[in-house]
Amino acid sequence: MSDSRPIGIFDSGIGGLTVVHEVFRQLPDESVVYFGDTARVPYGTKSAQSVQRFAMQDAMFLLKYNVKMIVVACHTASAIALNLLCDQLSLPVFGVTEPGGKAALKQTRNGKIGVIGTRGTIHSKAYDRYMNALHPDIFLMTQPCPLFVPLAEEGWMDTDVTERIAQIYLSSMKRAGIDTLILGCTHYPLLKGVIQQVMGSDVILIDSAEETVRSVKQVLQKKQMNNPGQRKPIHRFFVSDIPDQFQEIGERFLGCTLSPVEQVDMEVIEMLKISKISSMKIE
Amino acid sequence: MSDSRPIGIFDSGIGGLTVVHEVFRQLPDESVVYFGDTARVPYGTKSAQSVQRFAMQDAMFLLKYNVKMIVVACHTASAIALNLLCDQLSLPVFGVTEPGGKAALKQTRNGKIGVIGTRGTIHSKAYDRYMNALHPDIFLMTQPCPLFVPLAEEGWMDTDVTERIAQIYLSSMKRAGIDTLILGCTHYPLLKGVIQQVMGSDVILIDSAEETVRSVKQVLQKKQMNNPGQRKPIHRFFVSDIPDQFQEIGERFLGCTLSPVEQVDMEVIEMLKISKISSMKIE
Repeated sequence: MSDSRPIGIFDSGIGGLTVVHEVFRQLPDESVVYFGDTARVPYGTKSAQSVQRFAMQDAMFLLKYNVKMIVVACHTASAIALNLLCDQLSLPVFGVTEPGGKAALKQTRNGKIGVIGTRGTIHSKAYDRYMNALHPDIFLMTQPCPLFVPLAEEGWMDTDVTERIAQIYLSSMKRAGIDTLILGCTHYPLLKGVIQQVMGSDVILIDSAEETVRSVKQVLQKKQMNNPGQRKPIHRFFVSDIPDQFQEIGERFLGCTLSPVEQVDMEVIEMLKISKISSMKIE
Repeated sequence: MSDSRPIGIFDSGIGGLTVVHEVFRQLPDESVVYFGDTARVPYGTKSAQSVQRFAMQDAMFLLKYNVKMIVVACHTASAIALNLLCDQLSLPVFGVTEPGGKAALKQTRNGKIGVIGTRGTIHSKAYDRYMNALHPDIFLMTQPCPLFVPLAEEGWMDTDVTERIAQIYLSSMKRAGIDTLILGCTHYPLLKGVIQQVMGSDVILIDSAEETVRSVKQVLQKKQMNNPGQRKPIHRFFVSDIPDQFQEIGERFLGCTLSPVEQVDMEVIEMLKISKISSMKIE
């Protein structure tokens, strides 16, 4: 048994390319169809209602490309829309919240875990719910860091300003003595250096991309859904808008040259009405 | 002759409320219909194609409320989509680029003018075109400041971090000796204090909201389109998404309590197809 269909991955923008990078590393035979909703980015500052609507349209766009599963590579969409997607779609859907949370629970030594993310992710309390259900006695501390995304997009990875902002955002967590910190946004691994420096070298940073693709790999093997690998995988990258710096930022995320990116007409995305989803269920 | 219809104002988000604030001050008899496209904010990082599409949909939404004119309160949309809107719509359309540019040309003493704005605004070169056409010998220096919007939204108006970032962005302009600086983004007046401090008290800061509404007032008087003022003006505020902090940030912009805001279903906006515009021309 095998399944040569591609893995569908979406994100609010290009941050989800960190997940694509991990697929290339851990699952080199798999094809990927990626959609980045760059016309409506960011999701982290939008309401739950809007994020759910966007996430559903993004998933439905990927279904058109006959994907065998969907990875929600956006932390905000994972935190806010994963249940809805799992409920509405009849194919495996993976988020980035649970794999990151699980890894943190495994790694912590003192039971004090921190989560940083967008306002949307933190206010959703998705990490609190997931981790308290598994370990009610865990001490969980969360902090929105709205300036981290624009800092990463500006390319200010290790300036004095970035360090100062990280000190402001992370000071309570540091004082509370957390020993494990979940980087709950796809952009944050780009600031790993400065975050590690501010938190100290003893604190373990959890990058959810790696953990998420590890879960995907396990499920593919268990369900015998791997690509048999007889043909070279084919990757396609779609975005809803191509801003000036797309190529530059994308290659920073992917750590390699970005293959041609296709721009989707927003009208195609907007026509994917949520009300029509129930009749579009696929097995 | 008079015209009691409301003035339509749109912005990518809530920054355009600075223009509404000026209408309240300079034209207290006028009614306002405001639309903030908070579901797709920001425009400053998006492509020209997307900004034009969004701006056209925003304008068409306002037309449904029988507005007598449209003010594009978003600098990015003004810079990129104003010509398109003026071309397609048969009612007066005002942007924020020209009034700010005109005011700067009037105020400068040494002929050296700076413009700061989003990447979209700066890359469009709208200010360069407008000001060089009027005064080819003007020295114009432009600088995108992508972190200013998130800093203002975070409420970090006068922190040491904001000052340091302003120093980084503004250092070349300061060295070049510009004596007039256009705040080419609706969010930037919130950072006026720190910008003035970094540039020095001799540099004149141009806030386009005030200048734009002054132009609107002149045209209303010239065309005898003022509201006769027999009835109390009625204001309506629409947004495409209501994020958590909307009320707080909105009141910071308006400088007063925000009247009830109505959320528009995004499907209504998305259904306003540009291809249908020509048949919707109004006089």
